Amino acid sequence: MLHPIKQSPPGRDTSVGTVYLVGAGPGDPELLTLKAARLLASAEAVVFDHLVGTGVMDLVNPAAQRFYAGKEAGNHSLPQDQINALLVRLAHEGRQVVRLKGGDPFIFGRGGEEMEELREAGVRCEVVPGITAASGISACTGIPLTHRDHARTVVFATGHLKDGTVNLDWPSLARPQQTVVIYMGLGAIAIICSELIKHGLPPETPAAAIHKGTTPQQVTLAATLATLARRVDESGMKSPALIIVGGVVSVAGNQAASGDHTRREAPQAC
Amino acid sequence: MLHPIKQSPPGRDTSVGTVYLVGAGPGDPELLTLKAARLLASAEAVVFDHLVGTGVMDLVNPAAQRFYAGKEAGNHSLPQDQINALLVRLAHEGRQVVRLKGGDPFIFGRGGEEMEELREAGVRCEVVPGITAASGISACTGIPLTHRDHARTVVFATGHLKDGTVNLDWPSLARPQQTVVIYMGLGAIAIICSELIKHGLPPETPAAAIHKGTTPQQVTLAATLATLARRVDESGMKSPALIIVGGVVSVAGNQAASGDHTRREAPQAC
Repeated sequence: MLHPIKQSPPGRDTSVGTVYLVGAGPGDPELLTLKAARLLASAEAVVFDHLVGTGVMDLVNPAAQRFYAGKEAGNHSLPQDQINALLVRLAHEGRQVVRLKGGDPFIFGRGGEEMEELREAGVRCEVVPGITAASGISACTGIPLTHRDHARTVVFATGHLKDGTVNLDWPSLARPQQTVVIYMGLGAIAIICSELIKHGLPPETPAAAIHKGTTPQQVTLAATLATLARRVDESGMKSPALIIVGGVVSVAGNQAASGDHTRREAPQAC
Repeated sequence: MLHPIKQSPPGRDTSVGTVYLVGAGPGDPELLTLKAARLLASAEAVVFDHLVGTGVMDLVNPAAQRFYAGKEAGNHSLPQDQINALLVRLAHEGRQVVRLKGGDPFIFGRGGEEMEELREAGVRCEVVPGITAASGISACTGIPLTHRDHARTVVFATGHLKDGTVNLDWPSLARPQQTVVIYMGLGAIAIICSELIKHGLPPETPAAAIHKGTTPQQVTLAATLATLARRVDESGMKSPALIIVGGVVSVAGNQAASGDHTRREAPQAC
């Protein structure tokens, strides 16, 4: 017996526009998908986050109305319920709306919550994936997330949780043969590194923090779990940054696992 | 002190071409990045895998030489060392080479191994990320990988390991508040589901298998850990397929977590 999943409830008003939840990728506008670029070029309204790069916004239909939804850490320009209400209102005005989110809408992007709100309001919603920061930054830094000599699994976590704590499931993160990628974790980097060591990862495990990966402002700090927090502190690195932990970090640039180093030039690969 | 990472050794022969390790995304050609499409349109040689969709190959420069590298499960048309040797030879002929891999080159794509081989041969290598199957398929099915009500983390594993076994780190996969995505796991789905239950996940945990996600041939089977293997068996689903386990599966289409269902139509969102 077949029970088709519908993206939106039956019987909705066809004069209502569609909201496309679109991933803007990690920063480099060339890492947008063809589909995202097409939708941006024809959008009638675009609601965009803080993390969406200016180069990406250059691809938006010049006639589209633009709405800044913010989402800087600790400085939400629009609360989530107001973002939801805005999307519903724009769709009910019959417009084709792009909700543009940094990275991928379904990886730490609250895309799921926005999709649910739109469905409940009877608005048709389509999700267009984006290159998540982990993929974009692994490519730029040459860190292969699942190199078979170093990792059987890769896990994505966030250092910025719903209730404001860094209450992660440390025993499941601190496993051998696993790459750990932490989004939005720079503010908690000392806690993250010490908890991973406390739960069993060797202090000499390679670890890197990458600021504004895939953009010309990219800075990479490669160190170890024991030294990364101090290196970040000394360098004055700011958010946004991604943290990658695991043997795969040592593959990048053929650097020795224990060799602390910084790369400040724009990445060749991006 | 700054120690720049180089993507290729200094002093290399500048008459040697560059190899771009490019992610072709999950199947839908519109999910290619702008950068990947640009490189395909100007490539002089393209070495492509089995999982690269025909629609993607339509974007390749008609004058480019094409090499099929295979990689069907159990039917490797070209062994990995011959793929590596081919890439090095093409680059040494001074050509701009695209090595086109399904999904993302650094997520279960052996991109890291090919990058290392190219570096050792003195060939400049750039990595271009792709939409990994987990992102592409989560968007198409409406399964938000990290919905905050259901998951704090998402972990990617493969059911097809280097030594041919499914010897995964079950205790770290079978955790509450975690989404598990298993690539290339259809052949081992009965083992995967029973091990996840044995290691603590409730049998009623929502779980889905998605065949050829993001393409017009997409089929989704949504069930539970207790029932998914049987459903896959009954349906005759074949590889390639992705398995997603966790509470987020119940968010898709507002289906109840326990409601087994199949979707056979092409997804609206892709």
